[in-house]
Amino acid sequence: MIGLDLGGTNSVFGIVDARGEIKATTAIKTGGYSRVEDYVSASVEALQPIIEQVGGMEYIKAMGIGAPNGNYYKGTIEMAPNLPWAHDSVVPLADLFSEALGIPVALTNDANAAAIGEMTYGVARGMKDFIVITLGTGVGSGIVTGGHLLYGSDGFAGELGHVTMVRGEEGRLCGCGRKGCLECYCSATGVARTARELLAKSDRPSLLRDMNPDEITSLDVSIAAGKGDALAKEIYNFTGKMLGEACADFAAFSSPEAFIFFGGMTKAGDLIMKPIKETYNRHVLPIFRGKAQFLVSSLDGASAAVLGASAVGWDAVASTEKKG
Amino acid sequence: MIGLDLGGTNSVFGIVDARGEIKATTAIKTGGYSRVEDYVSASVEALQPIIEQVGGMEYIKAMGIGAPNGNYYKGTIEMAPNLPWAHDSVVPLADLFSEALGIPVALTNDANAAAIGEMTYGVARGMKDFIVITLGTGVGSGIVTGGHLLYGSDGFAGELGHVTMVRGEEGRLCGCGRKGCLECYCSATGVARTARELLAKSDRPSLLRDMNPDEITSLDVSIAAGKGDALAKEIYNFTGKMLGEACADFAAFSSPEAFIFFGGMTKAGDLIMKPIKETYNRHVLPIFRGKAQFLVSSLDGASAAVLGASAVGWDAVASTEKKG
Repeated sequence: MIGLDLGGTNSVFGIVDARGEIKATTAIKTGGYSRVEDYVSASVEALQPIIEQVGGMEYIKAMGIGAPNGNYYKGTIEMAPNLPWAHDSVVPLADLFSEALGIPVALTNDANAAAIGEMTYGVARGMKDFIVITLGTGVGSGIVTGGHLLYGSDGFAGELGHVTMVRGEEGRLCGCGRKGCLECYCSATGVARTARELLAKSDRPSLLRDMNPDEITSLDVSIAAGKGDALAKEIYNFTGKMLGEACADFAAFSSPEAFIFFGGMTKAGDLIMKPIKETYNRHVLPIFRGKAQFLVSSLDGASAAVLGASAVGWDAVASTEKKG
Repeated sequence: MIGLDLGGTNSVFGIVDARGEIKATTAIKTGGYSRVEDYVSASVEALQPIIEQVGGMEYIKAMGIGAPNGNYYKGTIEMAPNLPWAHDSVVPLADLFSEALGIPVALTNDANAAAIGEMTYGVARGMKDFIVITLGTGVGSGIVTGGHLLYGSDGFAGELGHVTMVRGEEGRLCGCGRKGCLECYCSATGVARTARELLAKSDRPSLLRDMNPDEITSLDVSIAAGKGDALAKEIYNFTGKMLGEACADFAAFSSPEAFIFFGGMTKAGDLIMKPIKETYNRHVLPIFRGKAQFLVSSLDGASAAVLGASAVGWDAVASTEKKG
């Protein structure tokens, strides 16, 4: 199985066996091509040596792709602002790779790929109802209900980073053009924004004051909090509380047995997970109280996205077999 | 197929054919029994004449029940505050009816039954992803994704009346003990509460001022609005706007092709549907804009709940056949 973690900067390819072991990897720059055809050619060229390394194409059943704005139903990437070859168009990437490699290819968005990865190889093995929340530059989500990824009517379900948490004009402006989205507060950029707001609002001492406010990242906040900085702890507390309130609403929707958090921010550990759990159990409808688990992804950060993407490839195999 | 719409006051039974035609009906008072065994006995007794009317038990394959706090997985009613024989216990109602009648019985909550009814006999025929929102004394929901009702890990998914719409202390107190739930604003009781609040807040003239504020119902507001009363129109506008904002969040979850509204309040027509649609399309994430339909249930009010409940019975047939 080939997995492609297609990010704004790098495209990382891995060849993964049925047990979820990555046998070989390679990568190209995502943005170095203005036409998608050139991107696919460069990808296939980069793949050749690692395909040979595992014994050739006859050992590869399918390919799975996790990509921003990926549409599972159509196998397309649609209007992805960060991809030069797909920023204003609908690109049939799954079909292009399928033609170039002669194998079935399935594609979905990156957070969905993470959810499929957790279900196939990670902490969600055996679970039928769970939600993966990715905390990165943005906030993404992959929702599994009844053992299936929730795609919705158009393939774009599971955009939980864009539920409105702060209504009205006081909501922070989001990249999507709307105000008050969960993503504006709980992404890595949201955490940095909270840091700047809290620093500006008072004169309270903090290790973060030694930095240029515009250069503070969520990692800096995490390091300061780890050193016991009260203001930095408050920032994670604020972030965790909002995630906990959001999860309480998500429970009213799909009543998952677990919420699984994925991404660099989870490295903050209890600093973020404790306020999430406590706020959730305080805010959730009584029938759901105490039922859901709050977990951190068990997949290794560097390889998780590739593993997740490769797991999507099993869907391509299944749908090819169904067609006969 | 027998359908039972189990409400707080009445339990309405109907015998429904495969086309969704109600052949015969009967009813008993739900609350007249302190023990569930007596309730089931009285139900079976009431059913006898209508079962004979359709030709006897050999013409009846199964029974479906729509009930408050119904758990589909277990066939139980759990801690239903309004039912004297189930207010503080877990009642295995599906098993009790199955034993008494000798047919498979499936049970789900009333809003889920409405969704299954719409999918089987109503406006959602042929749809795979939609959300039914019931606007009654409370706000309920039945969510269908990928052609299946969403039950979640414990059978209680789809409690969209209890997502938080107004955060913090200013949220209205909800019957669930929490604050700011959608239900506190958009149920029939929520509309009446909005009326009282708006009347108290100003001296603006309104037909509603002729009434005792404590006796105003959502029907009164609807009648006044129908007569052109500006304040009454504003109440529906406020209610519709909040529903539209809530639906925008629901789209980020499951991206349904339609939102279907069910219950007495939908009789207000465009007064409520127009602000829902307009607010939704203004608030929803751009990729979802203009995609979803906003529909009103096509099932006749009086029979819809019985039809919905009977449709749940098909699940009982399917699960019996699966077991062998």
